[in-house]
Amino acid sequence: MKIAVLGAGMVGRTIAEDLSKTHEVTSFDVNEPNLAIVQKRANVKTQQANLQLYDEYKNWFAAFEFIVIAVPGFMGFNALKSIIELGKNVADISFFPEDGLALHELAVKNNVTAIIDCGVAPGMSNLILGYENSQMQVHSFDCMVGGLPKKREKPFEYKAPFSPIDVIEEYTRPARYVENGNIITKPALSDAEFVNISPVGTLESFNTDGLRSIMFTMKHIPNMKEKTLRYPSHIQLMQALIQAGFFSEDEITVNGTNIKPIDFTNKILFNSWKLNPTDVEFTVMKIDIAGAQNNIPLNISYLLYDEYDAATQTASMSRTTGYACNAFAHLIMENKFSQKGVFPPELVGGDAHCFDFVMSYLKDRNVVYKKTTN
Amino acid sequence: MKIAVLGAGMVGRTIAEDLSKTHEVTSFDVNEPNLAIVQKRANVKTQQANLQLYDEYKNWFAAFEFIVIAVPGFMGFNALKSIIELGKNVADISFFPEDGLALHELAVKNNVTAIIDCGVAPGMSNLILGYENSQMQVHSFDCMVGGLPKKREKPFEYKAPFSPIDVIEEYTRPARYVENGNIITKPALSDAEFVNISPVGTLESFNTDGLRSIMFTMKHIPNMKEKTLRYPSHIQLMQALIQAGFFSEDEITVNGTNIKPIDFTNKILFNSWKLNPTDVEFTVMKIDIAGAQNNIPLNISYLLYDEYDAATQTASMSRTTGYACNAFAHLIMENKFSQKGVFPPELVGGDAHCFDFVMSYLKDRNVVYKKTTN
Repeated sequence: MKIAVLGAGMVGRTIAEDLSKTHEVTSFDVNEPNLAIVQKRANVKTQQANLQLYDEYKNWFAAFEFIVIAVPGFMGFNALKSIIELGKNVADISFFPEDGLALHELAVKNNVTAIIDCGVAPGMSNLILGYENSQMQVHSFDCMVGGLPKKREKPFEYKAPFSPIDVIEEYTRPARYVENGNIITKPALSDAEFVNISPVGTLESFNTDGLRSIMFTMKHIPNMKEKTLRYPSHIQLMQALIQAGFFSEDEITVNGTNIKPIDFTNKILFNSWKLNPTDVEFTVMKIDIAGAQNNIPLNISYLLYDEYDAATQTASMSRTTGYACNAFAHLIMENKFSQKGVFPPELVGGDAHCFDFVMSYLKDRNVVYKKTTN
Repeated sequence: MKIAVLGAGMVGRTIAEDLSKTHEVTSFDVNEPNLAIVQKRANVKTQQANLQLYDEYKNWFAAFEFIVIAVPGFMGFNALKSIIELGKNVADISFFPEDGLALHELAVKNNVTAIIDCGVAPGMSNLILGYENSQMQVHSFDCMVGGLPKKREKPFEYKAPFSPIDVIEEYTRPARYVENGNIITKPALSDAEFVNISPVGTLESFNTDGLRSIMFTMKHIPNMKEKTLRYPSHIQLMQALIQAGFFSEDEITVNGTNIKPIDFTNKILFNSWKLNPTDVEFTVMKIDIAGAQNNIPLNISYLLYDEYDAATQTASMSRTTGYACNAFAHLIMENKFSQKGVFPPELVGGDAHCFDFVMSYLKDRNVVYKKTTN
């Protein structure tokens, strides 16, 4: 198939590289160095393009048979809408803040299959919940997830391959979870607690607003929570910075210049958090699902632990999210999932064949979700 | 006597108020609101004056019989030099960074008695060491000192009545202490350790470069150390900010504007550390002196604990430093200390009468140094 991959950042280029082994791939990005990297790594065509020019999409993408969207979140919704309007099937990993299901009717009308939020969390966590929900009666879903550098360096013990502003947004947006059937809103970073996660050791989990679509598609599950994982004390430091006003949006005057603290701090953290291409990082996700099967209590856990791949110099973040996205892409391309509309992964996981296919696709790439039943 | 007090900031105005009970005092400051406060509180004349115009000193101060310098540190040395050139006796509490003893010859020539560093530490700590040094053979001098808000508020649990930039300077300048007769230089904030100090509870002490003149005037004492006290964890937070680059002097570009991180952070901390006039704060200093008297081992401790005085709305910082300064001023004015030259307080404390006078002056104002002998 002829596939267009929109965005050639860290994840987009891994997606293109992986898909190029079996398909004819063209990467689009506004950034020429990004395109140069992807071209050096894989048999992929490239085209420089400002992907915010949505009116151009019909010119650029009409000839493609499948689309993957891997653009920054703020562009994601408009990119997806434009692709659906073009009538192209699509897998999306842009994690845009808008409600993707709002495009469902448009996708149905245009005979499009779109799977959105195709990463790890959201992404694989949704798929797993959707699958287990089809196998048992789920009472509670608890997900903890984090991407961390293997080398712990003070003061933050954290590295991010993307702008700190996106992380800070996660650290400041009120977090919602579901308890006894009610949506509870708590401050971000609340309920910090230590957890021992094999093989990492002790990490700290805290509330972030990560449930997204499952708060609404899985309304019948009374307890659902997603927490983010960091090395201990990271969150206390971030909390201190927030309290002191380092992330304020209200301008202050420094030497006669008005400046938003958030803009300054973003710059400082960018230097401090910079993940170098060969830094060893890992992704860890633990999912605990409790409930009953045929009225017999059942507790299931899934554990993902994945590290930077030195052989291919591919970050774990790129591997775990990019390969998941490609698994979903293949479900659509191979007609394994052919419903029309916009679907978050929990609505895909209800089909055991789809679930097995994705798990197997990832396992082939050494991204392993280890399931245990207690 | 006709006394001029240079500077009417938090400490300067307390000095003026205290001296005005027995002398004819005029306060000088560039800042009119500062002068208005001192005038409201005490029977003090005021004169608006830019005290950086050192050439004007002869016009302003020729008619005064004694001078107290309570200007910001960066102006202190030049102010003192100008006063000595005028031939006026002076007590100085500006804590300037330059070496005050460099003005000794000038003071001798001009028949001037000048006592410098007339605060708590430096100040009373020096006086106490000077006194005990005249009574015993001192092997070690350990001083811990801090000014803290009584109400602990996250994230910093610290308030400062002066610019954060001065505190940060203390937190970043390498710290020197004396060990086995050698001057050791360590990073600022090093050797953090918890100490229990009655009646406060557990605080954290760490190295700062606070010994100043005694490193040279008390060279025969093999071990001397001054550490600063803060509530636990304050220093870890400050260290994190330093490590992350928030105090860097190297400009970064934010939204097209070049800015020094230190300038930005100073502004943020100013808001976060602001001490309001009625905030209850305290001063705590613990001095441990070990040695021998007539070849019998002797350990002596001094403890100062002083709080904000609600009745007169006077900060402990103003009380403990301002009254100490006035005690030294009275030593000179009353001819109890009449040597000519520039003297740090350890050279005053060698005279037991001077020591007793200062202690008694402070006790009358309810600033009590409790001495214990073990």
